[in-house]
Amino acid sequence: MTESPRKKRSGGRAGHAARRGPSAIEQMPWRLPVNHDRPTEPLSPEGVQAIHDGAMTILEEIGVAFLNPEAATLLKQAGCRVEGEVVYMGRDFVMEMLAKCPEQWTLTPRNPDRKLVVGGDYILFGNVSSPPNYWDMEIGRKVPGTREYCANLLKLTQYFNCIHFAGGYPVEPVDIHPSIRHLDVLYDKLTLTDKVPHAYSLGTERVEDVMEMVRIAGGLSHEEFDATPRMYTNINSTSPLKHDHPMLDGWMRLARRGQGLIVTPFTLAGAMAPVTMAGAVAQSLAEGLSAIALAQWINPGVPCAIGTFTSNVDMKTGAPAFGTPEYMRATQMTGQMARFYKLPMRSSGVCAANVPDGQAMWETSNSLWAAVQSGSHIVYHAAGWLEGGLIASPEKFVMDCEVLQQIQRYMEPATWATGPEDIALDAIREVKHNGHFFGTQHTQERYTTAFYQPFLSDWRNYEGWEVAGGIWTAERAHHVYKRILNEFEAPPMDEAIREELADFVARRKSEGGAPTDF
Amino acid sequence: MTESPRKKRSGGRAGHAARRGPSAIEQMPWRLPVNHDRPTEPLSPEGVQAIHDGAMTILEEIGVAFLNPEAATLLKQAGCRVEGEVVYMGRDFVMEMLAKCPEQWTLTPRNPDRKLVVGGDYILFGNVSSPPNYWDMEIGRKVPGTREYCANLLKLTQYFNCIHFAGGYPVEPVDIHPSIRHLDVLYDKLTLTDKVPHAYSLGTERVEDVMEMVRIAGGLSHEEFDATPRMYTNINSTSPLKHDHPMLDGWMRLARRGQGLIVTPFTLAGAMAPVTMAGAVAQSLAEGLSAIALAQWINPGVPCAIGTFTSNVDMKTGAPAFGTPEYMRATQMTGQMARFYKLPMRSSGVCAANVPDGQAMWETSNSLWAAVQSGSHIVYHAAGWLEGGLIASPEKFVMDCEVLQQIQRYMEPATWATGPEDIALDAIREVKHNGHFFGTQHTQERYTTAFYQPFLSDWRNYEGWEVAGGIWTAERAHHVYKRILNEFEAPPMDEAIREELADFVARRKSEGGAPTDF
Repeated sequence: MTESPRKKRSGGRAGHAARRGPSAIEQMPWRLPVNHDRPTEPLSPEGVQAIHDGAMTILEEIGVAFLNPEAATLLKQAGCRVEGEVVYMGRDFVMEMLAKCPEQWTLTPRNPDRKLVVGGDYILFGNVSSPPNYWDMEIGRKVPGTREYCANLLKLTQYFNCIHFAGGYPVEPVDIHPSIRHLDVLYDKLTLTDKVPHAYSLGTERVEDVMEMVRIAGGLSHEEFDATPRMYTNINSTSPLKHDHPMLDGWMRLARRGQGLIVTPFTLAGAMAPVTMAGAVAQSLAEGLSAIALAQWINPGVPCAIGTFTSNVDMKTGAPAFGTPEYMRATQMTGQMARFYKLPMRSSGVCAANVPDGQAMWETSNSLWAAVQSGSHIVYHAAGWLEGGLIASPEKFVMDCEVLQQIQRYMEPATWATGPEDIALDAIREVKHNGHFFGTQHTQERYTTAFYQPFLSDWRNYEGWEVAGGIWTAERAHHVYKRILNEFEAPPMDEAIREELADFVARRKSEGGAPTDF
Repeated sequence: MTESPRKKRSGGRAGHAARRGPSAIEQMPWRLPVNHDRPTEPLSPEGVQAIHDGAMTILEEIGVAFLNPEAATLLKQAGCRVEGEVVYMGRDFVMEMLAKCPEQWTLTPRNPDRKLVVGGDYILFGNVSSPPNYWDMEIGRKVPGTREYCANLLKLTQYFNCIHFAGGYPVEPVDIHPSIRHLDVLYDKLTLTDKVPHAYSLGTERVEDVMEMVRIAGGLSHEEFDATPRMYTNINSTSPLKHDHPMLDGWMRLARRGQGLIVTPFTLAGAMAPVTMAGAVAQSLAEGLSAIALAQWINPGVPCAIGTFTSNVDMKTGAPAFGTPEYMRATQMTGQMARFYKLPMRSSGVCAANVPDGQAMWETSNSLWAAVQSGSHIVYHAAGWLEGGLIASPEKFVMDCEVLQQIQRYMEPATWATGPEDIALDAIREVKHNGHFFGTQHTQERYTTAFYQPFLSDWRNYEGWEVAGGIWTAERAHHVYKRILNEFEAPPMDEAIREELADFVARRKSEGGAPTDF
């Protein structure tokens, strides 16, 4: 993405950084990464057809339960057979609805420099979302999330340019009453970050409140808000083959307002889905596509994406596993199916590890590379996730951002350019069979930007590392996260807008917030 | 690879395991993994041609120094222009020689069940080779390698079925005098393992001694030894653009005996090679292809493979970096070039990290996935490597084997099968919109083998993990490696052969071993 002419006016990252002097770390600039790699595709064309047939047969013959009478009624009007809560969709209807979904769409947050393109060759990464617990090295144990911890992670979300959007609550602040939690966290999110925000589909009031707050934060009229996607929701089906009431309510509300819609079935093979990965993927698709068909019926052309969260369980204990070989293949298969349906796709950065150690990083690496290989467009939970999503950790967040920066550098075409200056015959002629390339003009002209420069990896030899304290990665990440929080400055916001936002929160709190009986 | 009918007779793994009762860990069975994935190919056809032209121009116009008069003389006889030590090879000659190299070949160690196929869709993994130092958690610091440490790592090499060949010394045993080191370590390697062995090309006597020991260990006549590759060497050019005397000597000796030949230039972009990755790859290819051309001139059809070890340096400190974005792309580009030249290819599992922590695992994961994505056939240093190859660690070895098992499981087609039983519509019909799949017959028939089962990853939740001691991955790996060493039994060897091997070692020691003045 080229630099936007709006950057200076709107106080984008570059201008902001210039005002505040040196940073805690040097990091790569904000950009929308482009994934040039041909996806890894385990399925043959026949395999794609078999999973498609499976998903369509599920929709036609087994049906999906829509636990929301409004949704069921709408789908009945659309011509689907409805028996009680179960909706049976013909494949012709489903494919007709999917064809209305744009292959590529945008999300424009309050800082237009942070506008995202979802689809095409872009791949976007977001922070960990929704863990109830927090772990950091100083606390040294798993503790319930709080507003302060949540804000810490929102600051990291804003700070790192390799994080493109602010997903759900990076940790659930259980010290705030659920009736008003969304008001406080969205206030924090919209003031501490200027990246694309998310709304949980947890009941009418929450969704309406969040849309209103996003509108206010953007300084938008209602018409401007509705004109283009400013935010998004992500709903999870209740596998097997169910969509619950509040999720569908939020889904339909955002559909009507033309906001971004992502549906991500949580299909653990062997538990809520068949033990076979192709079966779990087929079921996941049936669940996801049925929600997208509903959205397209309500508002043709509304931006949707299909998510995958298909993994396996430990068959000895039933515990969910993440970043496994099966997880990687399910992600790649879903990528093939998303291309078949011409839908943008969401996957995740995940692990089962409980602390930010070696296992955490091989599981996370497996899942992030699967996201790249699958041609995913949106990667949720890409930084900060532990314990299968039950813990958010700032150290893990920082470690994951090092991996994400490397993935994003990996995508820069300079790395594999083959022009004459890249083949560098003149430099090779100059050095010939002795000496080295450090001193050549070819090297001198390029060395400052030739290679990825890490902020967390320690590339010193053992002795240098030992003299510097012999600090393992997680502890280095702890120090980095502390430095970032110490120097953090919120992105600029017009004071009148901030007051309007605060007034809205105060008013809605005085009204009691949202009901908590769903 | 199907089970060999020889397994019982020759005391292969299955029979051996049955004799000794339960194992320290449950691991996947021995097999040759097949890489079904289409490689990741950053280069366009024009990019491939540009790098090829670059490599050929280097060979024709800049030349490669062969610091071995015999090699230079042979290449002069082959029609190359030779000026002093520098050999200039025309591209027609090079391509004619490369065309003689088989695209796929075998390596048959003393246990024929461990026979390897190099090339095609197979991908094979070997242990860390050649670090001078050792680190384990109990020692707690970097210490020089010893024969005991070396034997520890040879036992792990033998123990893990995901390790297919025994590379160079897994750690350099500096407590053995260099003149006889190869005799003791090869004795240990050939008695503690029954996998394909490697010989360092470090002077005439060492190479001849190792070939003789491999012949004795296999119970082979000289004719049988020469009939098919039983072992291999790996030489490194002295970049830029030089092959040294002892390496070339060993290379030519093994070429004449028809053994496996791998050439791996160590081209650090910005130091011994151009700062641009395409330039570093072109230079690496020129160095590697020139050695293969020599081997094919000496013995047409001798099995060769081209290696890549192109990475970048930290341009602030000059320190080598591994598992970086640039390393990944260089590996993928070299894979494309290896396919262009129809040569099997070697890459590596590498990291710059000093201890087996998070950084170690993301760097190693990056490099191992690059090996998979590049279509590599042989992956060196795949388990146990730290500090850019200066440290071998048993904990890291065990952690890497967990990653390697996952990669090898990832390659099993069952993971993406799409037959009717995989789509599992009957099971989905049975469970419908409520309940779960745990109890279905479809799950019950498959759950024991449906998913990868780790031996090191801890998939318990935080509380379960905490109750069990809250042990981070590296420490768990420490316990695993100790358990493996405690129960280790060497693979069976005929007593007469063992005595012949010991006698050979004793005789060669009494003769003074190998000169150390090379």
